[in-house]
Amino acid sequence: MDEKILLAHGSGGKLSHDLIRQNFIPILGNPLLNKLDDGAVFELSGRLAFTTDSYVVKPIFFPGGDIGKLAVCGTVNDLAMCGAQPLYLSVSLVIEEGLLLSELRRIIASMQKAAEEAGAIIVTGDTKVVNRGSADKLFINTSGVGIVPPGANISGSEAKPGDKLILSGTIGDHGIAVMSQREGLEFRVPVESDCAPLNKLVAEMLDAGQIHCLRDPTRGGLATTLNEFAAQSKIGIQIEEERIPVKEAVRAACELLGFDPLYVANEGKLVAAVASADADQVLARMRQNQYGEGATIIGEVVEQHPGRVVMRTRLGASRLVDMLVGDLLPRIC
Amino acid sequence: MDEKILLAHGSGGKLSHDLIRQNFIPILGNPLLNKLDDGAVFELSGRLAFTTDSYVVKPIFFPGGDIGKLAVCGTVNDLAMCGAQPLYLSVSLVIEEGLLLSELRRIIASMQKAAEEAGAIIVTGDTKVVNRGSADKLFINTSGVGIVPPGANISGSEAKPGDKLILSGTIGDHGIAVMSQREGLEFRVPVESDCAPLNKLVAEMLDAGQIHCLRDPTRGGLATTLNEFAAQSKIGIQIEEERIPVKEAVRAACELLGFDPLYVANEGKLVAAVASADADQVLARMRQNQYGEGATIIGEVVEQHPGRVVMRTRLGASRLVDMLVGDLLPRIC
Repeated sequence: MDEKILLAHGSGGKLSHDLIRQNFIPILGNPLLNKLDDGAVFELSGRLAFTTDSYVVKPIFFPGGDIGKLAVCGTVNDLAMCGAQPLYLSVSLVIEEGLLLSELRRIIASMQKAAEEAGAIIVTGDTKVVNRGSADKLFINTSGVGIVPPGANISGSEAKPGDKLILSGTIGDHGIAVMSQREGLEFRVPVESDCAPLNKLVAEMLDAGQIHCLRDPTRGGLATTLNEFAAQSKIGIQIEEERIPVKEAVRAACELLGFDPLYVANEGKLVAAVASADADQVLARMRQNQYGEGATIIGEVVEQHPGRVVMRTRLGASRLVDMLVGDLLPRIC
Repeated sequence: MDEKILLAHGSGGKLSHDLIRQNFIPILGNPLLNKLDDGAVFELSGRLAFTTDSYVVKPIFFPGGDIGKLAVCGTVNDLAMCGAQPLYLSVSLVIEEGLLLSELRRIIASMQKAAEEAGAIIVTGDTKVVNRGSADKLFINTSGVGIVPPGANISGSEAKPGDKLILSGTIGDHGIAVMSQREGLEFRVPVESDCAPLNKLVAEMLDAGQIHCLRDPTRGGLATTLNEFAAQSKIGIQIEEERIPVKEAVRAACELLGFDPLYVANEGKLVAAVASADADQVLARMRQNQYGEGATIIGEVVEQHPGRVVMRTRLGASRLVDMLVGDLLPRIC
C-alpha cells in the first residue's frame, strides 16, 4: 500500500476530510480535536505562555527521532523555557504532493507519543498540500499554550551577576545526528538526536530553586543562547570549556566536519541561569531526571564585559565566544 | 536595494537576530514581542479559543491582499468562527532562500495592519529559511488565542431544524482574484479578494441574537461548509440558488473557467445558522457592518435528508450539493 498524498488532500473538500477522519483522528483523537471546528475552545485561567515554531528538518527521519517528534518536543520546550507546563498544542502540516501516506502516519504517531509524554494534547490543526517541487516532503508548524506556575518569572533578560549557569547535558547530539543522516556519514559510535520534552525537568527545577533564565540551545547552539542571555540581561558570561560535556563521537564528528560543538543544535538540552545559593540543589534535582542526568555547572554570570560571553579554554586562555555567524547546518530543525 | 533572504537568516544566529531586530520589530513591535523570549507570557482567564492555519497561497501578492493579510485574517476569522475575539497571534515564516527583503517587509507590514484592524497583537514568532527550490517563496503559519464571550456556544454541530442560514455577502471573490492573478487572466471588471477580518461582525451578530453555527467558507467554498454543518449536526440543509449572491464578474470568470462559485474559496465571508426567531434582527445588524452589507438569508436547516445539502435551482429543480471532490484551485490560501 504505497498510497501517496495528492493535491486534493489539501482541497478542504472530501479528500481532506477523509484524510483527517481516517488517518489523523484515530491516532490523535480527543474530545476537543474530534469536534473538527475552526478552533478549539477550553476554559483556562492564569499566566499563560504561547509559542510557535515551524520545522523544516531534512531528512524528515533521523537517528533518535523524526520531524513529528521534533515539532512536538520543540514547542513543548519553548513553553517550558517560559517556565510553563504545556497543555494544548496545534499542528499545521504543509505537505509536498507525493509524500507517502505511510510516512505521514508514522510522523503523526510520533507526534502523539511525544505529546503524551509531555502531558499535552493536540487540539486543533490544519493541512495544506503544495505541488511537487514547491516544498520538500513535509514542513510542520506546532504552536502551543501552557500555564506558568505562580512565582516563576523567567526571561532571557533576568540573569543577574553571581548566577550559576547550568547545562542539562551533552551538546551537539541533534545537529550531528541529522547531519550524519543527511550526508550518509557513518561513525563508529552512532550519534542519536537528543530530541526530548523537557517540561517535567523544568517543573522540578522550578520546585528546587530560583531560576532566572531558561533556554534550549537549538539552532545556533549553546554559544548563541549564552549570547542572547548576555545581550538581553546586559551582563557578562564566563564559561569553562572543560566543563562543557560533549560526547566523544560528537567531538570526533565535529573535528571531521570542521564544526565547533558550541554552535551545533540541541533539541533536548537546556541552559539555565540559577540564583547562586540555589544552584547546588537545582543541579542535584536535575540529575535525578532522565533528561538532566548529565547536568553540570558550566560557568557564571558576571558584571564584567556586559553583552559578551568569554570562555576559558582547556589551555587556560580566554576566548570571546560570539553568536553564530553564517549558517553551519541549514535545516537542522 | 534588492537585498535577498539568505540561508543564514534562518540560522538562529547573528543574521536571524539582525533580521528580527531591524525588519520585524520596527513594524510589529509591542512589549510582549520585544522581549524576544521563546514564547510570550500573559494573564488571561475564561473560555479561550485556540486555532492554527498555514498559508501557501500562490502568488503571494494578489488583487485585494497578500499572503500576510490573508494569514492574519484567516486566523482571526477561525477564532471568530468559534465566537471568539482574537487577542494574541503568532507568526511563523518558512522562507525560500532568495526572497526579496523588500517583499518580506511589505508582507510583514500588511500583517500588522490586519492585526490592528482586528484588535489583536502579534506576540511571538519564528523564522526558518530553506534552500532555493525547497519551498515556493514564502509560507506563513499564524496561530491565535482569543476569548469567547459568556453565552456563546458555537459549533458546526449546533445547527437545529428551523435555523435560518445567513451568508454575509457575495461568494467566490477570493478564489477568482487569486486565480486570475496566477494565470494572468484579465477581466473587464477586475475581481478583488474579499480577505478581511470578521471578528467585529461576529461580535455584533452574537449581540443581536442566538447564533448556533458560524464558519468562513474558505477552501472548498460554501458548498463544503454547508456539508460540514449537515454532517456535524446530523441535520438537512435546504438552500435557494437565486438567493446566493455572486458578483457578475465572478460569475463570468467561473463560466469561463468551468468553476461552480459554490466551491470557490472566500476569505472575508461567513455563513451562520441562526435561531429562526432572531434571524431578522441578526441580519439587520450584519447589514450595518462593512463586511456584512450584502448579508442575506440563503436557506434553512431542515429535519429531512440529514447529512445532505439540497439546493433549489433557479429553474425550480432540486439539486444535491455535495462536498468538493478533487481540487478545484490548489494553493488558494
